[in-house]
Parts: sequence; structure tokens; C-alpha cells
Amino acid sequence: MLYLVGLGLSYTSDITVRGLEVVKKCKRVYLEAYTSILMQADQKSLEDFYGREVILADRELVEGGSDQILAGAEQDDIAFLVVGDPYGATTHTDLVIRARELGIKIETIHNASVMNAVGACGLQLYQFGQTVSLVFFTDSWKPDSFYDKILENRKIGLHTLVLLDIKVKEQSIENMARGRLIYDPPRYMSIETAARQLLEIEESRNQQAYTPNTPCVGVSRLGSPQQKFKAATLKELTKYESGEPLHSLIVLGRQVHDLELEFLYDFVDDKEKFKKFVEEDQEYFKPPPYVPPPDDDDDM
Amino acid sequence: MLYLVGLGLSYTSDITVRGLEVVKKCKRVYLEAYTSILMQADQKSLEDFYGREVILADRELVEGGSDQILAGAEQDDIAFLVVGDPYGATTHTDLVIRARELGIKIETIHNASVMNAVGACGLQLYQFGQTVSLVFFTDSWKPDSFYDKILENRKIGLHTLVLLDIKVKEQSIENMARGRLIYDPPRYMSIETAARQLLEIEESRNQQAYTPNTPCVGVSRLGSPQQKFKAATLKELTKYESGEPLHSLIVLGRQVHDLELEFLYDFVDDKEKFKKFVEEDQEYFKPPPYVPPPDDDDDM
Repeated sequence: MLYLVGLGLSYTSDITVRGLEVVKKCKRVYLEAYTSILMQADQKSLEDFYGREVILADRELVEGGSDQILAGAEQDDIAFLVVGDPYGATTHTDLVIRARELGIKIETIHNASVMNAVGACGLQLYQFGQTVSLVFFTDSWKPDSFYDKILENRKIGLHTLVLLDIKVKEQSIENMARGRLIYDPPRYMSIETAARQLLEIEESRNQQAYTPNTPCVGVSRLGSPQQKFKAATLKELTKYESGEPLHSLIVLGRQVHDLELEFLYDFVDDKEKFKKFVEEDQEYFKPPPYVPPPDDDDDM
Repeated sequence: MLYLVGLGLSYTSDITVRGLEVVKKCKRVYLEAYTSILMQADQKSLEDFYGREVILADRELVEGGSDQILAGAEQDDIAFLVVGDPYGATTHTDLVIRARELGIKIETIHNASVMNAVGACGLQLYQFGQTVSLVFFTDSWKPDSFYDKILENRKIGLHTLVLLDIKVKEQSIENMARGRLIYDPPRYMSIETAARQLLEIEESRNQQAYTPNTPCVGVSRLGSPQQKFKAATLKELTKYESGEPLHSLIVLGRQVHDLELEFLYDFVDDKEKFKKFVEEDQEYFKPPPYVPPPDDDDDM
């Protein structure tokens, strides 16, 4: 049996009771360690908490060596641990499809992921459109496919969750070219960088998918004791000090309910100012006013 | 402190280790018992698992008596348990805002909800638009606001998660009129009913938000040992026997990746037939073909 076990967002103890039982009984336990991190835990603290060995699975192992992970799983229990939920932001569909091909049974133990826990900022999950990802720009590479998606969401009034880039175990181009297995220190995109990159693309695309005054919510360390939300305009967030990772960003849509707004007031510097920005932003993509159909009675 | 604790989807042991620690230490523990159910657990089995008393909180208590729930939470620890995630499909924003007004600290212990665990069917969460709800129709009441939202999602190629109605502790109109506190047996919408209701609205609205041949995924008992997915057209699902609750339904969007499709094949009756329906459905809301901009050089 292959168990896909979600670890949740932050603490070693964010694993479910059922997940912990599985981890304890499995023959081998792998930790997917390249698309996200547990904010309050590492391999050592997980091993202490589980009372057993945990094997770090990097990109090479997962994408190139899935048969190594799955070896013997027809008869033995193998666990594959994923930060968040196994089917959250990063999915491991390849691994599951390969396991199926090998006739290995699969059981998933779900957990919270950023995709649902982000509701803690008070915005309703119902009001979110498609989720987008934002990668670190370089001088020559500024992928902006997120822009059209935010535009699509905002055209129909919806909020957008923007997942921010994480670079773990990346090689510099120089080290790669020289074949040196030296990795850069991990990098986690801050809310300031995300806001700057979003505005840079708005300047070049100029279709008003959003503006410097569009209200957003900076989401920092979601699910951890240092969790923090900041509601402000995109321009204001370019100067926000978001602190330790991990971060995400929400671009608000036009449909902001009163209850959502009231919830967000807890995270603003100036309530009246924020409300004004929300109201102004609601003018974008506003549907045309209702015009009653012409009267069929011609008795006027 | 008010702890909002997510219970996950199915088993008593789907609570997180941290959630269980909190439940054990709290002075009072409430279980929100009217918007969803744990499929493999009830009040009694939860009390046995936690080794303590759990107070059932019905709609009257949560919406009318939140001060009763919050009494003493300035100094004592109170837990409010919610099936899924506290900020998932049903949120308790009112309770949180009231706690804030009373100066009570709040901590959330997240868990899986249908909103993220649904990724287990192989469709990428990135590719979902806004989530909609479908309520039981009556002869005189057939609310169809979901229709425009599915249309909006499908216009931009996205999948739609349809959450199906749950009626727990509802009174009949007659009992309500006579002031009798007699409740109807709980009702959970099946996939068959959902598919029929969706097609009924398509027939009356007739804007081709979807068609009888639109591919869908029936999601049954998500996260439980009896979890089942069924990929079929909407029309086929009107005759599907989905079995025990809980259920949800996914209406596919045009953007179906190859990997998503390959994953879904495990849940179809006939692979080739399903593929054909997916391809035909992709013709709806297809963007116009790309026309290169006219050449500025007039040197022809």
C-alpha cells in the first residue's frame, strides 16, 4: 500500500492522528522536501516526533526515481509525506499513476493546505476563482501567465489566491554548467516582491487587471503561531515587511461581502481608507446597470 | 481562548494531533452538527475517542446563542469543532467576529475540507473556478444562481465544484406552522438528484452553460474508506447509484490536461467514449483561433 499523507501547514503535530498511526507502521517513510516546507518542523524534529527514520525525497528522487520509492509497495506499506495536502497546490499525480500501473493500492490521508486554510483571513472560499502561481522574475524571464488569470477572475468579481515561488535546492546557472552539485540557499518570495512583480506586469500589459490601488491581503506563515494577515493596496504592500516565510497574496475581486470586509478590518492600518479603496476598486468590471426590457404593451 | 478545530472528513482519527491535544484540555467542547457530518463518527464515538463530553451545537445555538458558547472564553479554553476545515465550505465568521468584539483570543487548527481534498479525483485544484451550492428543489422553489456561476467558470475553461444540499434537523412547514419541534429525518442530496436538477435548469435557462453530454465527476464519501469517484456525462449520472452520503459533483471545464484525463480514466465505464465526450465538450466556449497581427512592413 502507498499512503499519501498530508502534513498540514506548520507544526509536527499538524499531522492527523490517523496519519501518525500510518507513519509509525510503514516500512519506509519519504518526505517530499522540495515544493514546500513545514514552518515549525524539519526532518530531525519529524523523526523525533514519529520515533522513526524519515527519508528526504528531493525532486530527482520523486520525478526520476518513483520506482525506487514504490519498491515493494505491493506487499509492504510505504508512506509519502507531503506538506499541506497531497492533492493541494503541488500534486503528485505522476507517482499515483505509476503506482496504479504497478498494481499498488493507494490511500490518501488528507490535511489542510493553503488552498483551503487561506479562508482564515475572512474571505469566503466560495468567492475565489482559479489559483495562480508567481515565480521569481529574472532580468530576462518574467513569466506573466498569471496576469490573464487574475483578469479572468476579476472580470467576474472573484478573489485570486497567488501562490508565491519557493526555491529549494536550486543550482546557479554557473554551477549547473560546470556540473557542480552546489545548491543555492533556499529562497521564499516575500509579499513585497510579489506586489512589485505584479505591478511591473500591470505596467507592461496595461489592461487594468488590477491597479496599484487594488485591495489585497498579504498572508504570512498561515497556520503557524506567527500567522499574520495584512490588508492593504498592492502599492502599499510593495513597502510591507512581511518577515519570515511562507507567504501568499490574495488579490481581491469586486464581490466583497460586508462580512468579509468587516473581517478584514482587523488587518488594516486605516479602516476608512481601506474601505474607500475597496469601493473604488468595485468600479472596475462593474456589470452594466439593469435596463428593464421594453414593454410589449403598446398602449401608451 | 476560542479554538476553532477542523475535524477533517471522515474518521474520529482525522483530527490532527494538535487538535486532539486542544480538545482534551478545553473546559467546554462544542460540535457544530448541522452543516455537515463526519461519515465514520458520531457524538458518542467522538466522546469515546476524546475521553470527554462533547456538546452538540445546532443552528439555534450557533446563530442565536454564540454568547453562550463564548461564555468565559476570556479566561477558559473553549473548543468549537467543525467537520472539514473551520474556514471551508461553511464558515463561522459571525462567531469569530463576536469573539473578537468580546476581546477573546482565537486560534484555528486547520484540517482537510472538501474544497481541497476533492483534488484526489485527479483534477488540479488550480483549474477550478468558484465553488457553487445546489439546494434541494421543491415544486415552487428552484434557486438557480449556481447556473450563472458554472457558466462563468466554463466560459474561461474551469472546472466547478458543486456542493450538494444537506438537510439536518429541518422542520416541515406544517410542523413549523403548528410550532411543533418535530424534525424531519436528515436528507443528503445524491449525485443522481444533483444531475437531474442541473439538467432541469439547463432546460429552462437554455444558455448551454453545460449540456447532457458534459463530462462530470461524481464524488462520493470523500476521505472515507468507501470513497468513490465516477466520471461520466451529466445525463449518465442521472441514472448513477451513488449510495451512502456525502456526495459532491464536479462539472468539468474545457481545460482538461492529459494527466487529468489519464487519472479520470480509472473512474469511467468506457475510456474511449468518455474521451470523445471530453473532446466534444471542449468545443464549447472555445476561444477564437489566433490571427497574427497585420504586418507593419508594407514591402509586399
